[in-house]
Formats: sequence, C-alpha cells, structure tokens
Amino acid sequence: MTNTVTAPDPSLRAAAQARSDAQAKPTGALGRLEHLGAWLAACQGVNPPRPLTDVRVAVFAGDHGVAARGVSAYPTQVTVAMVHGILAGVAGVSAIARSVGATVTVHDLGVDGLTGVPDEVRRFHVRPARPISDEDALTPDELDAALAAGDTIAAEAIADGAQVLIAGDLGIGNTTPSAALVAATLGLRGGDVAGSGTGVDAAGLARKAAAIDAALDRVGARASDPRQRLAALGSADIAAAVGFMTGAATRGIPVVVDGLIASAEALMAEELAPGASAWMVAGHVSTEPGCALAQRRLGLTPILDLGMRLGEGSGAVLAVPILEAAGAALREIAALADL
Amino acid sequence: MTNTVTAPDPSLRAAAQARSDAQAKPTGALGRLEHLGAWLAACQGVNPPRPLTDVRVAVFAGDHGVAARGVSAYPTQVTVAMVHGILAGVAGVSAIARSVGATVTVHDLGVDGLTGVPDEVRRFHVRPARPISDEDALTPDELDAALAAGDTIAAEAIADGAQVLIAGDLGIGNTTPSAALVAATLGLRGGDVAGSGTGVDAAGLARKAAAIDAALDRVGARASDPRQRLAALGSADIAAAVGFMTGAATRGIPVVVDGLIASAEALMAEELAPGASAWMVAGHVSTEPGCALAQRRLGLTPILDLGMRLGEGSGAVLAVPILEAAGAALREIAALADL
Repeated sequence: MTNTVTAPDPSLRAAAQARSDAQAKPTGALGRLEHLGAWLAACQGVNPPRPLTDVRVAVFAGDHGVAARGVSAYPTQVTVAMVHGILAGVAGVSAIARSVGATVTVHDLGVDGLTGVPDEVRRFHVRPARPISDEDALTPDELDAALAAGDTIAAEAIADGAQVLIAGDLGIGNTTPSAALVAATLGLRGGDVAGSGTGVDAAGLARKAAAIDAALDRVGARASDPRQRLAALGSADIAAAVGFMTGAATRGIPVVVDGLIASAEALMAEELAPGASAWMVAGHVSTEPGCALAQRRLGLTPILDLGMRLGEGSGAVLAVPILEAAGAALREIAALADL
Repeated sequence: MTNTVTAPDPSLRAAAQARSDAQAKPTGALGRLEHLGAWLAACQGVNPPRPLTDVRVAVFAGDHGVAARGVSAYPTQVTVAMVHGILAGVAGVSAIARSVGATVTVHDLGVDGLTGVPDEVRRFHVRPARPISDEDALTPDELDAALAAGDTIAAEAIADGAQVLIAGDLGIGNTTPSAALVAATLGLRGGDVAGSGTGVDAAGLARKAAAIDAALDRVGARASDPRQRLAALGSADIAAAVGFMTGAATRGIPVVVDGLIASAEALMAEELAPGASAWMVAGHVSTEPGCALAQRRLGLTPILDLGMRLGEGSGAVLAVPILEAAGAALREIAALADL
C-alpha cells in the first residue's frame, strides 16, 4: 500500500489530445471536456476511450465516537436508517446513480446497531470509531484491516468489470474526522476546516472546531506519519475508502472523488500510495471548507460546483455524465479533414 | 410576441421545495439541484416533475456579412461544412446530445451556398445577414419572418412532445453580432464584450471590437428599441432563435440556455416577451466575456463552467443530465418519515 503508483499512460493522453485537436471544432473549444476525455483515454489505455457502461459507487458507512461531542445536527441512529435507505434504493445517491446509470453498494465499516441487512453488507463490520478528541480512532491492526477491506471491495468490483469507482460516505459525525485529517495534512486548525456538515448550528460548529483542535493537540507530531494520522484521526469507514481508492489506482481504474470525506480520503490515499491521485478527478466541490482545501492540495479541479453537501458519493456520481460525454466527444466527433 | 409571459407556477415550486425538505437528507443538502428540481416541477406543472425523455436541440445556422471584416479565425465556407457535420451526426453537439439522450435538428436561416441537404433544413432559408458594421442585418420584414420561423420550429417540436428546448448556433462570425447585442443591451462597448470566439488572434480580436463599435455607433439611439436592435445588430439565425425561445416560454416549455450566442438571444427574448427568462436556466457559461454579462443581467446562474466555447448548443445539452438528476432526486428520494 506504500508503493508508488504508475501514472495513466502519458502517450495515450497525448494521442487523445491530438485526436481532439484534429476534430471538426476550434482547437480547445470543448475546454475541460477535452482534458477529461484525454485523461479517460490514458486511464483506460485506449484512444478514444470506451463508453462507460459500468460505474460503481461503494458507500462506506460507519459511526463515529466523536458524534457524542455534539458535532452533528442528527442523532447517530440516522446512520442505520440511511443504510436501509440505500439498500432500498431511496437515498439521495440511489436516485442520482439510477439517473446516470451507476450502481450503488453499501458496506458496514463500523455502524452501530445495524440489523436486518444482507450478510454481504456486514462482511467487514467492525466497532464504531473511538472518539478522536479523546483517543485514537483505530489501533494499527484495525487500520490495516480497514485498508484491506477497501482494497478487497475495489479488487472484486474491478474483477467484475467496474470501469470507474466512486467512494461514497455515510455516518453521522463523519465530517469531523475528515476535516481533522485535512487539517493535520495541511497544517491547519479546526476553525479553518470545520463546516456545518449536515446543518449543525453555530454552537455545534464551535464544538466541532474544538473537537478537531482537541484531536490535533492530542495526536501532536504523530500526525506527520500518514498511517498514524489516519488511525488516530480517521475511522474504519474512512480508512476502507482510502484502501478502495488506492486499490483502484494501483489496478489502473479511475476514481471520481466526491466532497469533503472523499477528498480527505483522496489526500490520505495519495500519501499512502504516491501517484494515486493521478487516477482521480474531483466530481464536485462541496460547501464544506475542508473539501476545496484538500482538492487544491491534490491539484484536483472540481467538475461541478452546485452547493451540494449530501455525501453518499452523490456529487461524484452526478459528474459521471460529464465524463461520459467527454469520452463520447473524443469517439464520435469527425475529423475536420473528413467533413 | 410582445406580451408578458406567465411565470412557471409558483405554487408548484413551493410544493416541490416542501417535498424536497421532507426527504431523507439534510435540508438544502442537494444545493442547486433542489432549486433546479423545483423549477422543473413549476415549469411542468406537476410535482414531482416527470422524467425528461424528449429534449431537443434546434441549431440555427447562418452566415454573417461582418465576417468579411476579419473577425473570425475561420472562412465562412466552414458554416456549410458544419451543417453537413450536424446532419451526419458527427459534430460536437451531435456527440454530446447522443451521450445524454437529446436529439438535434439544424435549420438554415441564412447559410451561404448550402446544397445537398433535405428540404426541411432549408425550409426557412434566407440570405445571409448584412454586415452590421455597415448596415442593418435585417429589414423589419426579414426580422418578423425570422422570429416567426423560430416560433414555428418551437411550436412544432412542442406539439410533437418536446419537454425541454435548446437553441444551438452555427455560423462563422456569429459571436460578433451576439456580442454587439449584449453591448447594446447593457450599454457597453466592443472591448467589453469581444472574445476570441473560435480562436481569433489579437489583431482579429481588435478588428472584432472595432466592428462592434462601428455597429453600435451606426445604430445609435435606435438600439434602445429591442426590435430595432435585433434587426440592426443581429441576424436571421439569431432572431429565429429568439423566436424559438419566446415560443417555448409562451407555451410553457423550459429552455436550457447555451453560451454567448444563446445568452444574447435570451436577453432579446426577455425584452420582446418580458418574463420569458423565468422559463430559462443557463446550462453553462462560456469563455466569451459577453456570455457571463448577459446571464448576469438575466439573473441566470450557469449550471456548468467548463471553459467551453464550441457553440452549437453543446454546453446547454451537457447540462441536461444535471437537470434530469434534479428531477429524479425529487421523484425518488424517500421521505424521512417513511424510512
């Protein structure tokens, strides 16, 4: 998991851009769409890229001990309800994914009290993350297990034909550890990264920033090591998504990054597997301040900016039709010489 | 064509927002998507809105006498070649529309030397627009005919089942009259609105700004009347698209607005049919400076900002999956009370 990742093929990126430049349109007239198409060709290793017929969202669900610090607008029981909502296909990400032709699975990596779900959902079940303001979220062994679970989920999806992977998130309190990871990585404080999440009020926002600062102060210099940072400030669901992203990148499968939680995970994936972010595109930027900070550090420019903050992978999956149109443009626009 | 347009039903907009607020997600968490869904419900007169299964792009093609002033990077013969490209389904808008499930038609409203096309394409054929820097593009009768042609195209598409309409543009030189219309409407000069279009160099950009200024100076106070402004500074293809947009709005059909040319047309549609812009959403903002200026005047916030400047309706059609996802979210996310 600490090996450098080979980048998408630069020769195919160049060939795709050359194909685009020869098409019946002014050079560069499709803007970002041309870059996305060339990146997709480089990721797939084929120019023009193939149609995207198999895009999968894996939602990593977990509870967070830090929620007891009053950092969220919702009680933790909502996590269980939303797992059932995804399984029933009636959550936000369900509707959007169906609309764009993507599929959604959900994985319990620390949900408290989840029952009545298929065994597959609880295959990697662990206890909820410990409260990061007071103690490390995970032991080193728990971290390894979560990273491996995400890698396995990615590997199995890829073996089954997935062309693009998206990590979704679900869990009351999960913006707090995500923001803490962004702060620790970028050398910031709680006040720089804390946002209103699901809609916490001003007092809750202050508690959230304080909880992040308490966690950062508690961990201190240990946070400079990415594995210790992730174990101390993260959670099993977040670590599994990190393993899912590195699992995609190391197997040459592109990832569309969602909002704050996924962007924090992408930051950690890049540290654990340098070069992994070359396989990523930011689907959208959310309203959480830590999201744009993490994406900027990674050099990722969001495709969409629609004021969304739902999580579940919803913003990333909404960007899939743009990515698919970029590929279609590269495949189907005639060469100017052929008109 | 000068009557005030009835707005999309505000009671349905409110009902749709209330439905969204009761769904299993934090209030407002889908950001702009919630506003788009509520607008779509108001336009359709039904909450939640119906799926978008019939979205049509009408590309209005025409040549522009002002092109002889050296304002474009391409010769006017390219207009004919691109009409054939659209008919063959190999233009930029063709690829993107196919990718998102929209259909494309093209209409000759002043193409010079177009042959070998179906009669339907040339049904409203007229002579190319006269050079706006030297004389009015259209006579009053020519203006009326072009507006009526666009209205007819909209009416027929709507009668045939179109749920959303998009005006595309095609014609070497067409950013010059469009920018001139924006400048005249907003009280600006050529240097404020001229962009590089298909990629004209610095000298060409200076010629373009000068041609716009010459046109503005020639027309003078006559430009304060929207009909005279459109006849003097526009073209038949632009006027037809204006009639197409007002035709959609007056019949209660929403319009997704593309880049500079469509945004200039939307400005004129709002002046000729006050209230028409309430039926519009801006699909994207292009890199042409006049585009953002026109959209801001209309109070339209673009869905996408991807550095595109192709025209043909390509940016608007790329936003269709976002609009469709907004409707899907409103239809398919469960009420929190039902989880």
